[in-house]
Amino acid sequence: MKISLGAKAFAYPTPVFVIGSYDEKGKANAMVAAWGGICSSDPVCITVSVREARQTYKNICLKKAFTVSIPNEDNLKEADYFGIYSGKNTDKFAETGLTPIKSDLVDAPYIKEFPLIIECKLIKTVELGVHTQFIGEVVDIKCDREVTGDNGLPEIEKVRPVTYDPVLKRYYGIGRYLGKAFSIGKKD
Amino acid sequence: MKISLGAKAFAYPTPVFVIGSYDEKGKANAMVAAWGGICSSDPVCITVSVREARQTYKNICLKKAFTVSIPNEDNLKEADYFGIYSGKNTDKFAETGLTPIKSDLVDAPYIKEFPLIIECKLIKTVELGVHTQFIGEVVDIKCDREVTGDNGLPEIEKVRPVTYDPVLKRYYGIGRYLGKAFSIGKKD
Repeated sequence: MKISLGAKAFAYPTPVFVIGSYDEKGKANAMVAAWGGICSSDPVCITVSVREARQTYKNICLKKAFTVSIPNEDNLKEADYFGIYSGKNTDKFAETGLTPIKSDLVDAPYIKEFPLIIECKLIKTVELGVHTQFIGEVVDIKCDREVTGDNGLPEIEKVRPVTYDPVLKRYYGIGRYLGKAFSIGKKD
Repeated sequence: MKISLGAKAFAYPTPVFVIGSYDEKGKANAMVAAWGGICSSDPVCITVSVREARQTYKNICLKKAFTVSIPNEDNLKEADYFGIYSGKNTDKFAETGLTPIKSDLVDAPYIKEFPLIIECKLIKTVELGVHTQFIGEVVDIKCDREVTGDNGLPEIEKVRPVTYDPVLKRYYGIGRYLGKAFSIGKKD
Protein backbone atom coordinates (compact mmCIF):
# COMPACT_ATOMS: atom_id res chain seq x y z
CA MET A 1 0.00 0.00 0.00
CA LYS A 2 1.52 3.27 -1.12
CA ILE A 3 0.95 6.62 0.52
CA SER A 4 -0.05 9.67 -1.52
CA LEU A 5 2.11 12.80 -1.44
CA GLY A 6 0.15 14.98 -3.86
CA ALA A 7 1.39 16.64 -7.04
CA LYS A 8 4.99 17.33 -6.11
CA ALA A 9 8.08 17.89 -8.27
CA PHE A 10 9.71 14.73 -6.94
CA ALA A 11 11.85 12.38 -9.03
CA TYR A 12 15.26 10.76 -8.73
CA PRO A 13 17.83 11.44 -9.95
CA THR A 14 17.70 15.02 -11.17
CA PRO A 15 20.78 16.69 -12.63
CA VAL A 16 22.81 19.72 -11.63
CA PHE A 17 23.08 21.51 -14.96
CA VAL A 18 24.70 24.92 -15.13
CA ILE A 19 23.24 26.83 -18.06
CA GLY A 20 25.57 29.32 -19.74
CA SER A 21 24.24 32.24 -21.81
CA TYR A 22 25.11 35.76 -22.97
CA ASP A 23 23.03 38.90 -22.56
CA GLU A 24 22.66 41.60 -25.22
CA LYS A 25 25.96 43.18 -24.18
CA GLY A 26 27.82 39.88 -24.30
CA LYS A 27 27.99 39.52 -20.51
CA ALA A 28 28.24 35.86 -19.55
CA ASN A 29 25.68 34.49 -17.13
CA ALA A 30 25.15 31.09 -15.55
CA MET A 31 22.32 29.54 -13.58
CA VAL A 32 21.80 26.10 -12.13
CA ALA A 33 18.90 23.95 -13.29
CA ALA A 34 17.70 20.56 -12.09
CA TRP A 35 14.69 20.47 -14.40
CA GLY A 36 16.16 19.08 -17.60
CA GLY A 37 17.71 16.14 -19.37
CA ILE A 38 18.38 14.49 -22.69
CA CYS A 39 15.17 14.29 -24.73
CA SER A 40 16.17 12.87 -28.11
CA SER A 41 18.93 10.74 -29.63
CA ASP A 42 18.77 11.92 -33.27
CA PRO A 43 19.05 14.83 -33.52
CA VAL A 44 20.59 14.78 -30.05
CA CYS A 45 18.53 17.18 -27.96
CA ILE A 46 18.59 18.28 -24.36
CA THR A 47 16.04 20.29 -22.38
CA VAL A 48 16.41 22.84 -19.63
CA SER A 49 13.50 24.57 -17.90
CA VAL A 50 13.84 28.20 -16.86
CA ARG A 51 11.47 30.69 -15.21
CA GLU A 52 10.62 33.77 -17.21
CA ALA A 53 11.96 36.10 -14.52
CA ARG A 54 15.51 34.76 -14.89
CA GLN A 55 18.22 36.55 -16.83
CA THR A 56 18.96 33.22 -18.54
CA TYR A 57 15.44 33.20 -20.00
CA LYS A 58 16.00 36.54 -21.70
CA ASN A 59 19.43 35.49 -22.88
CA ILE A 60 18.34 32.20 -24.45
CA CYS A 61 15.41 33.89 -26.20
CA LEU A 62 17.80 36.52 -27.56
CA LYS A 63 20.76 34.37 -28.59
CA LYS A 64 18.91 31.13 -29.48
CA ALA A 65 21.75 29.29 -27.85
CA PHE A 66 22.91 27.97 -24.49
CA THR A 67 25.41 25.59 -23.00
CA VAL A 68 25.12 23.08 -20.19
CA SER A 69 28.23 22.75 -18.03
CA ILE A 70 28.28 19.78 -15.69
CA PRO A 71 30.03 20.42 -12.39
CA ASN A 72 31.95 17.82 -10.47
CA GLU A 73 32.02 17.34 -6.71
CA ASP A 74 34.87 19.84 -6.35
CA ASN A 75 33.04 22.74 -7.95
CA LEU A 76 29.60 22.07 -6.52
CA LYS A 77 29.76 25.12 -4.24
CA GLU A 78 30.17 27.36 -7.26
CA ALA A 79 27.32 25.59 -9.03
CA ASP A 80 25.12 26.14 -5.97
CA TYR A 81 26.11 29.81 -5.98
CA PHE A 82 24.79 30.05 -9.54
CA GLY A 83 21.42 28.82 -8.24
CA ILE A 84 21.17 31.35 -5.43
CA TYR A 85 22.10 34.69 -6.94
CA SER A 86 20.78 36.56 -9.95
CA GLY A 87 22.80 37.57 -12.97
CA LYS A 88 20.71 40.75 -13.14
CA ASN A 89 22.65 42.46 -10.36
CA THR A 90 25.83 40.40 -9.98
CA ASP A 91 28.65 39.18 -12.18
CA LYS A 92 28.47 35.55 -11.22
CA PHE A 93 31.73 34.66 -12.92
CA ALA A 94 33.67 37.40 -11.15
CA GLU A 95 32.16 36.34 -7.83
CA THR A 96 32.98 32.64 -8.21
CA GLY A 97 36.32 33.06 -9.95
CA LEU A 98 35.20 30.68 -12.70
CA THR A 99 36.05 31.32 -16.33
CA PRO A 100 33.47 31.73 -19.10
CA ILE A 101 34.74 30.47 -22.45
CA LYS A 102 32.95 31.47 -25.62
CA SER A 103 31.75 28.42 -27.49
CA ASP A 104 33.22 28.13 -30.98
CA LEU A 105 29.91 26.73 -32.23
CA VAL A 106 27.07 28.60 -30.53
CA ASP A 107 26.64 32.10 -29.10
CA ALA A 108 26.94 31.09 -25.45
CA PRO A 109 29.70 30.63 -22.88
CA TYR A 110 30.65 27.46 -21.04
CA ILE A 111 32.56 27.04 -17.82
CA LYS A 112 36.21 26.20 -18.31
CA GLU A 113 36.65 24.59 -14.89
CA PHE A 114 33.75 22.12 -15.25
CA PRO A 115 34.69 18.71 -16.67
CA LEU A 116 31.99 18.19 -19.29
CA ILE A 117 30.06 20.70 -21.35
CA ILE A 118 27.24 20.53 -23.87
CA GLU A 119 26.82 23.19 -26.59
CA CYS A 120 23.28 23.74 -27.84
CA LYS A 121 21.36 25.75 -30.36
CA LEU A 122 17.76 26.44 -29.39
CA ILE A 123 15.29 24.57 -31.59
CA LYS A 124 12.03 24.63 -29.61
CA THR A 125 10.45 26.56 -26.75
CA VAL A 126 7.62 24.95 -24.82
CA GLU A 127 5.56 27.04 -22.37
CA LEU A 128 4.61 25.07 -19.25
CA GLY A 129 3.18 27.37 -16.60
CA VAL A 130 5.86 28.89 -14.37
CA HIS A 131 8.63 27.26 -16.38
CA THR A 132 9.55 27.47 -20.01
CA GLN A 133 11.22 24.43 -21.46
CA PHE A 134 14.03 25.24 -23.86
CA ILE A 135 14.98 22.38 -26.15
CA GLY A 136 18.45 22.61 -27.57
CA GLU A 137 20.01 20.58 -30.32
CA VAL A 138 23.38 19.40 -29.11
CA VAL A 139 26.06 20.48 -31.57
CA ASP A 140 29.04 19.27 -29.55
CA ILE A 141 30.10 17.73 -26.28
CA LYS A 142 33.47 18.80 -24.90
CA CYS A 143 35.32 17.40 -21.93
CA ASP A 144 38.63 17.54 -20.15
CA ARG A 145 41.08 14.92 -21.36
CA GLU A 146 41.70 13.90 -17.74
CA VAL A 147 38.15 12.58 -17.38
CA THR A 148 38.41 10.26 -20.37
CA GLY A 149 39.44 6.62 -20.39
CA ASP A 150 41.43 4.53 -22.84
CA ASN A 151 38.65 4.67 -25.44
CA GLY A 152 38.63 8.47 -25.39
CA LEU A 153 35.18 8.65 -23.77
CA PRO A 154 34.40 10.25 -20.42
CA GLU A 155 34.25 7.91 -17.43
CA ILE A 156 31.70 8.81 -14.78
CA GLU A 157 34.12 7.90 -11.97
CA LYS A 158 36.51 10.56 -13.31
CA VAL A 159 33.88 13.17 -14.12
CA ARG A 160 32.36 12.78 -10.62
CA PRO A 161 29.10 14.55 -11.49
CA VAL A 162 26.53 15.34 -8.84
CA THR A 163 22.80 14.83 -8.48
CA TYR A 164 20.13 16.95 -6.84
CA ASP A 165 17.50 15.53 -4.53
CA PRO A 166 14.46 17.77 -5.11
CA VAL A 167 12.57 16.33 -2.13
CA LEU A 168 14.95 17.47 0.59
CA LYS A 169 16.96 19.91 -1.56
CA ARG A 170 20.32 18.19 -1.12
CA TYR A 171 23.21 17.23 -3.35
CA TYR A 172 24.66 13.75 -3.67
CA GLY A 173 27.54 12.18 -5.53
CA ILE A 174 27.31 9.23 -7.88
CA GLY A 175 27.65 5.91 -6.08
CA ARG A 176 28.76 2.39 -6.83
CA TYR A 177 28.65 0.58 -10.16
CA LEU A 178 25.57 -1.64 -10.32
CA GLY A 179 25.77 -3.34 -13.70
CA LYS A 180 25.68 -3.07 -17.45
CA ALA A 181 22.53 -1.71 -19.07
CA PHE A 182 20.67 -3.80 -21.67
CA SER A 183 22.46 -6.76 -20.15
CA ILE A 184 21.74 -7.46 -16.47
CA GLY A 185 18.04 -7.92 -17.19
CA LYS A 186 18.47 -10.43 -20.04
CA LYS A 187 16.54 -13.68 -19.80
CA ASP A 188 18.53 -16.83 -20.62
CA MET B 1 41.79 22.79 -23.27
CA LYS B 2 38.79 20.61 -23.80
CA ILE B 3 38.52 17.84 -26.37
CA SER B 4 35.56 17.60 -28.72
CA LEU B 5 33.42 14.46 -28.76
CA GLY B 6 30.83 15.49 -31.34
CA ALA B 7 27.05 15.65 -30.98
CA LYS B 8 26.49 12.80 -28.55
CA ALA B 9 23.64 12.06 -26.14
CA PHE B 10 25.94 12.45 -23.14
CA ALA B 11 24.90 14.02 -19.84
CA TYR B 12 25.10 13.08 -16.17
CA PRO B 13 23.07 12.02 -14.33
CA THR B 14 20.25 10.52 -16.37
CA PRO B 15 17.38 8.70 -14.68
CA VAL B 16 16.08 5.16 -14.89
CA PHE B 17 12.38 5.80 -15.35
CA VAL B 18 10.03 2.89 -15.97
CA ILE B 19 7.04 4.14 -17.93
CA GLY B 20 3.77 2.31 -17.31
CA SER B 21 0.92 2.35 -19.84
CA TYR B 22 -2.08 0.35 -21.03
CA ASP B 23 -2.85 -0.79 -24.57
CA GLU B 24 -6.32 -0.78 -26.14
CA LYS B 25 -7.16 -4.10 -24.47
CA GLY B 26 -6.03 -2.91 -21.06
CA LYS B 27 -2.80 -4.93 -21.11
CA ALA B 28 -0.19 -3.31 -18.92
CA ASN B 29 3.17 -2.49 -20.46
CA ALA B 30 6.36 -0.98 -19.10
CA MET B 31 9.51 0.34 -20.71
CA VAL B 32 12.62 1.94 -19.31
CA ALA B 33 13.56 5.48 -20.30
CA ALA B 34 16.62 7.55 -19.46
CA TRP B 35 15.58 10.49 -21.60
CA GLY B 36 13.32 12.45 -19.28
CA GLY B 37 12.99 14.50 -16.13
CA ILE B 38 10.99 17.12 -14.30
CA CYS B 39 10.30 20.08 -16.56
CA SER B 40 8.01 22.40 -14.59
CA SER B 41 7.17 23.19 -10.96
CA ASP B 42 3.66 24.62 -11.41
CA PRO B 43 1.85 22.78 -12.80
CA VAL B 44 4.28 20.01 -11.91
CA CYS B 45 5.27 18.36 -15.18
CA ILE B 46 7.62 15.57 -16.14
CA THR B 47 8.84 14.49 -19.58
CA VAL B 48 9.65 11.09 -21.02
CA SER B 49 10.92 10.55 -24.55
CA VAL B 50 9.79 7.48 -26.48
CA ARG B 51 10.46 6.20 -30.00
CA GLU B 52 7.44 5.84 -32.25
CA ALA B 53 8.06 2.13 -32.78
CA ARG B 54 7.53 1.34 -29.10
CA GLN B 55 4.29 -0.09 -27.73
CA THR B 56 4.45 2.60 -25.04
CA TYR B 57 4.21 5.29 -27.73
CA LYS B 58 0.93 3.88 -29.02
CA ASN B 59 -0.39 3.42 -25.49
CA ILE B 60 0.33 6.97 -24.32
CA CYS B 61 -1.19 8.45 -27.49
CA LEU B 62 -4.30 6.32 -26.91
CA LYS B 63 -4.80 6.72 -23.17
CA LYS B 64 -3.34 10.23 -22.72
CA ALA B 65 -1.78 8.98 -19.52
CA PHE B 66 1.33 7.28 -18.17
CA THR B 67 3.12 6.62 -14.94
CA VAL B 68 6.79 6.75 -14.03
CA SER B 69 7.88 4.09 -11.54
CA ILE B 70 11.31 4.60 -10.05
CA PRO B 71 13.22 1.39 -9.34
CA ASN B 72 15.61 0.93 -6.49
CA GLU B 73 18.89 -0.97 -6.54
CA ASP B 74 17.14 -4.25 -5.71
CA ASN B 75 14.80 -4.20 -8.70
CA LEU B 76 17.22 -2.78 -11.24
CA LYS B 77 17.43 -6.10 -13.12
CA GLU B 78 13.70 -6.02 -13.76
CA ALA B 79 13.95 -2.39 -14.86
CA ASP B 80 16.72 -3.34 -17.29
CA TYR B 81 14.54 -6.17 -18.59
CA PHE B 82 11.88 -3.58 -19.42
CA GLY B 83 14.45 -1.80 -21.58
CA ILE B 84 15.50 -4.88 -23.55
CA TYR B 85 12.27 -6.60 -24.54
CA SER B 86 9.20 -5.37 -26.39
CA GLY B 87 5.69 -5.32 -24.99
CA LYS B 88 4.46 -6.13 -28.49
CA ASN B 89 5.30 -9.81 -28.20
CA THR B 90 5.85 -10.39 -24.49
CA ASP B 91 3.94 -9.85 -21.26
CA LYS B 92 6.68 -8.01 -19.42
CA PHE B 93 4.90 -8.16 -16.08
CA ALA B 94 4.38 -11.92 -16.28
CA GLU B 95 8.05 -12.37 -17.24
CA THR B 96 9.45 -10.25 -14.41
CA GLY B 97 6.94 -11.26 -11.76
CA LEU B 98 6.25 -7.60 -11.01
CA THR B 99 2.74 -6.37 -10.30
CA PRO B 100 0.96 -3.67 -12.34
CA ILE B 101 -1.44 -1.63 -10.22
CA LYS B 102 -4.07 0.49 -11.94
CA SER B 103 -3.66 4.14 -10.94
CA ASP B 104 -6.75 5.53 -9.22
CA LEU B 105 -6.16 8.87 -10.96
CA VAL B 106 -5.01 8.18 -14.54
CA ASP B 107 -5.55 5.38 -17.04
CA ALA B 108 -2.15 3.77 -16.61
CA PRO B 109 -0.55 1.15 -14.38
CA TYR B 110 2.34 1.59 -11.97
CA ILE B 111 4.66 -0.99 -10.51
CA LYS B 112 3.75 -2.08 -7.01
CA GLU B 113 7.23 -3.26 -6.09
CA PHE B 114 9.00 0.01 -6.99
CA PRO B 115 9.38 2.49 -4.12
CA LEU B 116 8.24 5.74 -5.74
CA ILE B 117 5.75 6.33 -8.53
CA ILE B 118 4.55 9.37 -10.46
CA GLU B 119 1.08 9.46 -12.03
CA CYS B 120 0.72 11.69 -15.09
CA LYS B 121 -1.86 12.87 -17.54
CA LEU B 122 -0.51 13.74 -20.97
CA ILE B 123 -0.66 17.47 -21.65
CA LYS B 124 1.78 18.00 -24.54
CA THR B 125 3.48 15.96 -27.24
CA VAL B 126 6.65 17.33 -28.84
CA GLU B 127 8.09 15.67 -31.95
CA LEU B 128 11.90 15.64 -31.91
CA GLY B 129 13.24 13.41 -34.67
CA VAL B 130 13.54 9.77 -33.60
CA HIS B 131 12.04 10.51 -30.20
CA THR B 132 8.73 12.00 -29.20
CA GLN B 133 8.70 13.88 -25.96
CA PHE B 134 5.59 13.27 -23.90
CA ILE B 135 4.98 15.90 -21.24
CA GLY B 136 2.78 14.76 -18.39
CA GLU B 137 1.20 16.82 -15.67
CA VAL B 138 1.91 15.09 -12.39
CA VAL B 139 -1.36 14.44 -10.58
CA ASP B 140 0.11 12.48 -7.67
CA ILE B 141 3.30 11.02 -6.27
CA LYS B 142 2.97 7.80 -4.30
CA CYS B 143 5.63 6.03 -2.31
CA ASP B 144 6.13 3.18 0.13
CA ARG B 145 5.86 4.25 3.73
CA GLU B 146 9.17 2.49 4.45
CA VAL B 147 11.10 4.97 2.29
CA THR B 148 9.80 8.03 4.15
CA GLY B 149 11.42 9.80 7.07
CA ASP B 150 9.99 11.48 10.16
CA ASN B 151 8.53 14.33 8.09
CA GLY B 152 6.60 11.92 5.87
CA LEU B 153 8.73 12.67 2.81
CA PRO B 154 10.83 10.15 0.90
CA GLU B 155 14.52 9.97 1.81
CA ILE B 156 16.88 9.23 -1.05
CA GLU B 157 18.97 6.92 1.15
CA LYS B 158 15.88 4.76 1.71
CA VAL B 159 14.56 4.95 -1.85
CA ARG B 160 17.99 3.98 -3.22
CA PRO B 161 17.23 5.06 -6.81
CA VAL B 162 19.64 4.39 -9.64
CA THR B 163 21.18 6.45 -12.40
CA TYR B 164 22.11 5.56 -15.96
CA ASP B 165 25.42 6.49 -17.52
CA PRO B 166 24.59 6.99 -21.23
CA VAL B 167 28.25 7.19 -22.24
CA LEU B 168 29.24 3.66 -21.26
CA LYS B 169 25.69 2.30 -20.78
CA ARG B 170 26.06 1.40 -17.14
CA TYR B 171 24.00 1.77 -13.99
CA TYR B 172 25.17 3.40 -10.78
CA GLY B 173 23.71 3.95 -7.34
CA ILE B 174 23.41 7.28 -5.58
CA GLY B 175 26.51 8.19 -3.61
CA ARG B 176 27.43 10.24 -0.61
CA TYR B 177 25.70 13.35 0.71
CA LEU B 178 27.56 16.46 -0.50
CA GLY B 179 25.64 19.37 0.98
CA LYS B 180 22.48 21.40 1.16
CA ALA B 181 21.27 23.11 -1.99
CA PHE B 182 20.75 26.89 -2.04
CA SER B 183 23.05 26.95 0.94
CA ILE B 184 26.59 25.65 0.38
CA GLY B 185 27.21 28.30 -2.29
CA LYS B 186 26.12 31.28 -0.17
CA LYS B 187 28.52 34.20 0.09
CA ASP B 188 28.98 35.61 3.60
